[in-house]
Amino acid sequence: MATLKELAELLDGTVVGDENIQVRRVAPISAAMAGDITFIASLKYLAALKETKASAVILFPGVEAPDLPAIVCKNPYLAFAKVLTHLQVRRLEPRGVMEGARVASGAQLAKDVTIHPGCVIGERVHIGSGTILYPNVVVYDDVTIGADCTIHAGVIIREGCRIGDRVILQPSVVIGSDGFGFAPDGERYFKIPQVGIVQIEDDVEIGSATCVDRATLGVTRIRRGAKIDNLVQIAHNVVVGEDCILVSQVGIAGSSELGRHCTFGGQAAVAGHLKIGDHVTIGGRGGVTHNLEPNQILSGLPAIPHREWLKASMSFTKLPEIRKEVGRLKRQLEELELKIKES
Amino acid sequence: MATLKELAELLDGTVVGDENIQVRRVAPISAAMAGDITFIASLKYLAALKETKASAVILFPGVEAPDLPAIVCKNPYLAFAKVLTHLQVRRLEPRGVMEGARVASGAQLAKDVTIHPGCVIGERVHIGSGTILYPNVVVYDDVTIGADCTIHAGVIIREGCRIGDRVILQPSVVIGSDGFGFAPDGERYFKIPQVGIVQIEDDVEIGSATCVDRATLGVTRIRRGAKIDNLVQIAHNVVVGEDCILVSQVGIAGSSELGRHCTFGGQAAVAGHLKIGDHVTIGGRGGVTHNLEPNQILSGLPAIPHREWLKASMSFTKLPEIRKEVGRLKRQLEELELKIKES
Amino acid sequence: MATLKELAELLDGTVVGDENIQVRRVAPISAAMAGDITFIASLKYLAALKETKASAVILFPGVEAPDLPAIVCKNPYLAFAKVLTHLQVRRLEPRGVMEGARVASGAQLAKDVTIHPGCVIGERVHIGSGTILYPNVVVYDDVTIGADCTIHAGVIIREGCRIGDRVILQPSVVIGSDGFGFAPDGERYFKIPQVGIVQIEDDVEIGSATCVDRATLGVTRIRRGAKIDNLVQIAHNVVVGEDCILVSQVGIAGSSELGRHCTFGGQAAVAGHLKIGDHVTIGGRGGVTHNLEPNQILSGLPAIPHREWLKASMSFTKLPEIRKEVGRLKRQLEELELKIKES
Repeated sequence: MATLKELAELLDGTVVGDENIQVRRVAPISAAMAGDITFIASLKYLAALKETKASAVILFPGVEAPDLPAIVCKNPYLAFAKVLTHLQVRRLEPRGVMEGARVASGAQLAKDVTIHPGCVIGERVHIGSGTILYPNVVVYDDVTIGADCTIHAGVIIREGCRIGDRVILQPSVVIGSDGFGFAPDGERYFKIPQVGIVQIEDDVEIGSATCVDRATLGVTRIRRGAKIDNLVQIAHNVVVGEDCILVSQVGIAGSSELGRHCTFGGQAAVAGHLKIGDHVTIGGRGGVTHNLEPNQILSGLPAIPHREWLKASMSFTKLPEIRKEVGRLKRQLEELELKIKES
Repeated sequence: MATLKELAELLDGTVVGDENIQVRRVAPISAAMAGDITFIASLKYLAALKETKASAVILFPGVEAPDLPAIVCKNPYLAFAKVLTHLQVRRLEPRGVMEGARVASGAQLAKDVTIHPGCVIGERVHIGSGTILYPNVVVYDDVTIGADCTIHAGVIIREGCRIGDRVILQPSVVIGSDGFGFAPDGERYFKIPQVGIVQIEDDVEIGSATCVDRATLGVTRIRRGAKIDNLVQIAHNVVVGEDCILVSQVGIAGSSELGRHCTFGGQAAVAGHLKIGDHVTIGGRGGVTHNLEPNQILSGLPAIPHREWLKASMSFTKLPEIRKEVGRLKRQLEELELKIKES
Repeated sequence: MATLKELAELLDGTVVGDENIQVRRVAPISAAMAGDITFIASLKYLAALKETKASAVILFPGVEAPDLPAIVCKNPYLAFAKVLTHLQVRRLEPRGVMEGARVASGAQLAKDVTIHPGCVIGERVHIGSGTILYPNVVVYDDVTIGADCTIHAGVIIREGCRIGDRVILQPSVVIGSDGFGFAPDGERYFKIPQVGIVQIEDDVEIGSATCVDRATLGVTRIRRGAKIDNLVQIAHNVVVGEDCILVSQVGIAGSSELGRHCTFGGQAAVAGHLKIGDHVTIGGRGGVTHNLEPNQILSGLPAIPHREWLKASMSFTKLPEIRKEVGRLKRQLEELELKIKES
């Protein structure tokens, strides 16, 4: 529950209308009811605003104020996220090491952690203040986890890996599994031990069942602020740059390095040993097969500039027609040549 | 163990030959032995039937009866599934809350549930009659699970999600992980809390390590009878329609809605915020980038009608040749023009 | 810690320089320090060798010996893997059934196993000598696991499956989940019970969150020495041949059989019911839609010979241009025909 005044302060915005109105929930325009605050992040929702039952709305500057009390601020989408956090995310009280959790005698836990039942914490593990481990998380020996992390149920963190502060790992994330490395020995393969680690920096979030492999030697690194969706594969010795966005089912092959603020659409992939510059965007299912300079948008496999890919894809459907046309032209031309020859 | 007479009643079929013969197992034509019943769902297996060692066979009407006792019924493939269920699937006796399971005091479990060791059940959870949780399942607070569900080992169901009756979750399924939502805040990203839920309706089956994200606001919904294979990604606010089939490694992006009885081949994908009509089929690795009317079969990325895609794919191999041919035609035409000019 | 002499014996190599020098760690050329041994597997790293701070190097024959003590052997990459194993992989002491593990009374475990807390082992399970189960592994009834296996945390092995010797399962692997089989019953689907098993032969390694489904009837089989990366889907009744390499996010559909020593790049896939010959290589994201003879390299969807695919992909970008050119040629030709007619 908060007044518009309180929220406007939080958002660095301005109230238009009654600033003492209280709201308790955020809701989309059409689903909102009395007591809810809604938001519009695009002009196309402006019409719907007349019909809403919300008690207040978050608007961007320059929009005609409706009959509703409003908070005007520069970035209503960000404001929505902040108000949602303020109103609807509870800060949980720390519960310590709960019954049914197993913590090795040599582990060092901050006082106000929460370790749920079924967690198994190895030797020489450090866990920082405010961090929560949900049930059945397994932390192998020599792992460090920072402060205020949320580690969901079933996450596995293998030996020696390091997790920063405010990291969120969704259920069943695997950190530090062996990289996929084998040396051919005749027809057979000899396992290359993977003795490096994974380092997850501050403010990273990783989605369910995503796997981040440990380095062969050295470090697989997910830099500060990167956000990785579900079922993503990060191979050994990869570097994911600051504030990268990797959507679901993306695969980054071994030793490739992504610059900062790259965005990869769902199922996109990067081959091994490549360098991708800052601010590169790869469309859904794009496949990168060579190094990339910064500030580009690419799609397709092999990935080419997005606009070219769009055009080529349009033409793709016409391929059988083009092929026939070329055949026709060839015959026509031959006939013409014959005609001229004869004349 | 069952007689052909019993099975024919189960299948609404007719026995040809000795109806008192007993069978104990279902087996493929070539692997079947005495005591087994086999089936043919297609005429191409008819020849193999002469060689089989099975004691009986399930046939469709109109097929010449062989020397074997047979059950004739309209849908032998369905009959195979039903006989297999009848003969070889044991109904397990409920075992209650087993030693080593942890159930919060406020959880409400039906009397005849089975909760294996290592399960952790949160507060205010409801679990219906006959439901089995295999070891190490984690159920967060406020979850409802219906009757006669099978929840395999390592499944994680996060807070507030609702599971219907007769739902099967294969090992390591994740239900209700946070949707992938972030509001840009300059170069960085601000997490959008995901305060909605997931609702899985009756008779749904979900494969190993598949992830179904909770809605940002509202509900991610898997409708009655949908079958989802392994390693599939269902993003926040998606609706999967009744009796949809999603094969392995499919990805459905945020807020997209599939109609009823859609079929997606392996690794296929749908971009976000799209509406797919009923009875749409997408071929393996098809990628849907726009809304789709009902009753279509598409393939490719972007997905186009399947037949067109097949033709275009055939021509794709010829592209270098087509390109050369076009170059040749151009030169030929120029020469011809020159010749005419000169003449 | 080992002397060059000891290592040369291990590698069947020759020492050039002081054979009594001791090394304790393997490191890449640029990161190596005193006490490290490095290696070069390619001539392109030869220059970097002059700058290295390593105490020794592994070289292949014919390379000019630098100022460093060296071990010369035929396959420096394999040698690197062997030295890394020798120097940096600790053989763990068996710890028996640890407190907090639950083993059914009818399970048979070799004396020197290690079963970590949170593991749940079913009835009639056999586990061989030297095998380690990390925390929270679930083994259903009637499973057999051989000797010297490493089963990482959170792995689930369902009923009746068989695992050979020296098998490595990375965290969260699922073995023996139900295959994806449903018989249409009008608009709805009837589950086909999956009563077969999975057999994993000796020396197989499987990556995190990879799923291997049990057979409908019979056996899904991963043959000796196959290496499978993370997040791979192996459907029911598949056979993966000896020494196959399946890179991350590959999908093998139901009943397909891969010959020996096949290599599948990341996100590649095989449709169902196909036979792939020995020594077939499929490029990243290749999609196989028909049977394949041995000894081929293919790419693309549908997969075509890799060289053709490369050329066609190059031409793909030019498609809009080709299409325009064909249009131009058509008009030009028509004009020319008209001209000739008029003349």
